Amino acid sequence: MRKKSFLCIGLDSELDKLPESVLNAEDPVFEFNRQLIDATHDLVIAYKPNTAFYEIAGAQGWRSLERTVNYIKRNYPDILVIADAKRGDIGNTSAMYARAFFETLGADAVTVAPYMGEDSVKPFLSYPEKWAIVLALTSNKGSEDFQQHYDSFQHQYYFERVLHESKEWGTEENLMYVVGANQAIKLIDIRKIVPDHFLLIPGVGAQGGSLTDVATYGMNNKCGLIVNSSRAIIFADSSKKFASVAREKAKEVREEMEFLLGQYF
Amino acid sequence: MRKKSFLCIGLDSELDKLPESVLNAEDPVFEFNRQLIDATHDLVIAYKPNTAFYEIAGAQGWRSLERTVNYIKRNYPDILVIADAKRGDIGNTSAMYARAFFETLGADAVTVAPYMGEDSVKPFLSYPEKWAIVLALTSNKGSEDFQQHYDSFQHQYYFERVLHESKEWGTEENLMYVVGANQAIKLIDIRKIVPDHFLLIPGVGAQGGSLTDVATYGMNNKCGLIVNSSRAIIFADSSKKFASVAREKAKEVREEMEFLLGQYF
Repeated sequence: MRKKSFLCIGLDSELDKLPESVLNAEDPVFEFNRQLIDATHDLVIAYKPNTAFYEIAGAQGWRSLERTVNYIKRNYPDILVIADAKRGDIGNTSAMYARAFFETLGADAVTVAPYMGEDSVKPFLSYPEKWAIVLALTSNKGSEDFQQHYDSFQHQYYFERVLHESKEWGTEENLMYVVGANQAIKLIDIRKIVPDHFLLIPGVGAQGGSLTDVATYGMNNKCGLIVNSSRAIIFADSSKKFASVAREKAKEVREEMEFLLGQYF
Repeated sequence: MRKKSFLCIGLDSELDKLPESVLNAEDPVFEFNRQLIDATHDLVIAYKPNTAFYEIAGAQGWRSLERTVNYIKRNYPDILVIADAKRGDIGNTSAMYARAFFETLGADAVTVAPYMGEDSVKPFLSYPEKWAIVLALTSNKGSEDFQQHYDSFQHQYYFERVLHESKEWGTEENLMYVVGANQAIKLIDIRKIVPDHFLLIPGVGAQGGSLTDVATYGMNNKCGLIVNSSRAIIFADSSKKFASVAREKAKEVREEMEFLLGQYF
């Protein structure tokens, strides 16, 4: 709240899209992230690297991911690092993932896919001051296929069932949910099920969700939102000034957030 | 069929469980895998490294994974390499994962979580001679929470809905399904929905599923099964003879498979 921001920047740092000015660095992806982080750290509450964009470079990509997380935690320890990994497996394997992301990598939160149920999520909930962020209702077209399937007998959408069941597995202190920004109107119903949990909201920016709608329908009395923007900020400019342009974009979003927070607090 | 086997060995090569004899190698996890692979390659049709057991060592773990996949493809190119990664994200991100696993890593197949729907799965289906293996009904207790939720209006389990919808996205040549071995009786209904698809069946061995039941209820006229065993084979012995003991265990399973194949073919 001190920053009057609930902005998360998604570090989807695709090698093919990096500005030329970082390509000569020993680790271009890390160099790109480092400049972005230094330029925006006072405007954000979280960074969210998506593991896909690192795994594409194999072990070298994981090295860039490790360097990025280390850099944030060393220099800006108050900023939440969300590993957007969408993991989930049988219990003993999910326990390995939890160790991989919370202990080895040092992230503060991991996104988790719920399809495999309770024992696939619980290992991520057993670390003090760490978070599991369970997929509820995502921003993509494919969310219609299963998440938005309506059970006419129980009168609920499948994602509502996921919320009802999974909220019993953790608390508001270790469990959040992913809800796509373009699903803002559904936040009314979602807040009836999980009034107090934090929600991670991707899809503002390049994916076209409205920040005002998200705040109107999704904010709770502690704000309760972490809104992510990736491409619209990190790839706003491809010259060597990319970081200062990213800062300007992030500043615009943060100012809108300050205005929206001002209406409620 | 030539090998009279449908065995897959799961390379869940957890560092803490490796035999002492490999710990002095430069890359103990790879050395463990290499000895296992050399000792069992003529008995199996697939190897399945689970990414969790590699990510736990960060970038170094990914290096071990890359070495393992390279070693199999270079020496035993006919053996299928399944990256048990349970990935899935919005379309452009799943496309990154598909590149990461099929191009960078060189795996032949990736396990995919279906919760995010069609555009999260399709990128894995656009590579010739590569496979997406979608989670249908898993072997863990948590499979009861969502997968086995029964829709009394549509008269179907949720995993049946996943099968019905997702089989339209691919073909029997690029799409398989995961079904846990301990769910063998449900294979009767599953085979009504996907009679011709290959099924990847984990949970024989340490997780207690019955190979006879799996074959009885799940085999189709091309066999159509890949049955995985991990811990019961790879950690059968912790002395320096671990690889030859693993071979004996794998041989027992393969012989049972030859017998079962003989009853149908």
